[in-house]
Amino acid sequence: MTYCVGIRLNAGLVFLSDSRTNAGLDAISTFRKMIVYEQPGERFMVLMSAGNLSISQSVREILQVEKLANGDEEPITIWNAKSMFEATRVLGSAVRRVYDQDGPSLKAAGIDFNCSMIFGGQIGNEAMRLFLVYSAGNFIEATRETCFFQIGESKYGKPILDRVLTPGTPLDEAAKCALVSMDSTLKSNLSVGLPLDLMVYEKDSLQSNRIAVIDDHNPYFRMIHNTWGQRLREVFEGIDDPHWGGGDAVHPLLTPSHRYEPMRKIQGPDEKIV
Amino acid sequence: MTYCVGIRLNAGLVFLSDSRTNAGLDAISTFRKMIVYEQPGERFMVLMSAGNLSISQSVREILQVEKLANGDEEPITIWNAKSMFEATRVLGSAVRRVYDQDGPSLKAAGIDFNCSMIFGGQIGNEAMRLFLVYSAGNFIEATRETCFFQIGESKYGKPILDRVLTPGTPLDEAAKCALVSMDSTLKSNLSVGLPLDLMVYEKDSLQSNRIAVIDDHNPYFRMIHNTWGQRLREVFEGIDDPHWGGGDAVHPLLTPSHRYEPMRKIQGPDEKIV
Repeated sequence: MTYCVGIRLNAGLVFLSDSRTNAGLDAISTFRKMIVYEQPGERFMVLMSAGNLSISQSVREILQVEKLANGDEEPITIWNAKSMFEATRVLGSAVRRVYDQDGPSLKAAGIDFNCSMIFGGQIGNEAMRLFLVYSAGNFIEATRETCFFQIGESKYGKPILDRVLTPGTPLDEAAKCALVSMDSTLKSNLSVGLPLDLMVYEKDSLQSNRIAVIDDHNPYFRMIHNTWGQRLREVFEGIDDPHWGGGDAVHPLLTPSHRYEPMRKIQGPDEKIV
Repeated sequence: MTYCVGIRLNAGLVFLSDSRTNAGLDAISTFRKMIVYEQPGERFMVLMSAGNLSISQSVREILQVEKLANGDEEPITIWNAKSMFEATRVLGSAVRRVYDQDGPSLKAAGIDFNCSMIFGGQIGNEAMRLFLVYSAGNFIEATRETCFFQIGESKYGKPILDRVLTPGTPLDEAAKCALVSMDSTLKSNLSVGLPLDLMVYEKDSLQSNRIAVIDDHNPYFRMIHNTWGQRLREVFEGIDDPHWGGGDAVHPLLTPSHRYEPMRKIQGPDEKIV
């Protein structure tokens, strides 16, 4: 499994990936899932991948040389694409090429052609863009309303992203949010693991060196891990327990529902279930 | 979808279920998923179900009359079973009977025989017990190390259960924890919905009237919903953002990893991916 999250903010982009790959619980390895394509001052792109590792490694390899026909003009590659949309079309094409090469054999072996990717960045004067690419090579783009994408084991870490992120969130706060989201995922799913790759990109810089590789000795991630769990329990303890007594509670639990009757009790073998 | 959680504590049992059922996003209905079987002073059992509604309704109906052969003795039913283990065997048998009746036709229609159930309670002088029953009618039991079971959409709400629950947790605190877990699930998955059924059972009481049906006007659940989200954001804001500068940070983010190199950057079309 895998967990990656990509965030598009007004201030820039944030990418975070884990690095665990497993084929069964007894075959666990470390593979980095993030790769950066950068021509400083001209283009900056980040790719993160989830799914079958043989597929995503092949896609990365082919993406370097993939060309999209462009009429009489020079074919489009990720290195000359004029927009992130064009570059993402090149990525979709690379995914389809791997499907053509490997799809039939995988199908014959009963294996899904399973891969999904987050691809984002900025090219020239265009705005920053962030895409989610599916295994059919089609893709969707993040918008103001939905400013992040997750791939892999997304559920454990989604509530904090839902609660915190807006396009106006500052870059470092979004990086912290991604790390908290990753921490919850690491705690609940063994198939997501350290080290993490974190990349933060500032709008219009067209390059970035805000890269961190985070292992279990990283002081900041350890602080998040310890603090978040501890504070969560404190907040939990600070909320009133439900009160089953009469009507003197500030927030009574036992209030008649305006629409629903209490749940049925069945009190013996002869009673009918209705 | 569905979300139900059952918890076994030293002090008693807690059961919480949602009530949304959907066949596609355009066919959403409300069905209660919890049912209580009670002979005061003798036995107290709670069943919660997830999966295909036609299967779980049939199981509930058949469970009332299901009999397990018992040699020369009277056949075992949930109403005369001498232990929760026996009663759960009766439930497993009811599941298998529905499989015999409906399984082949469901298979022909390409529909999985999909149902899972949480069944817990106390009979006579036996200790309280809590079981998770699978669609093959087999089951597992909660232990001190794993004191809760979830069925349905379990992932969003699992982190808070993992962080808070132990066998020593008091009953009302566990009920609060289940409600916080449900709140996170409701926020992230449309196919889980109100009203909720909450049942709290106190050890050795062999009956319970601590039943609440919770809809969106319930003051306690509204308080949890508002407080938890708000406090979570406060805790989040109270944690330091990462610091990209030099080594003066208290918890430096940029620390050399002892095992891993920084992620690769590819800087042009001729560079090889390795």
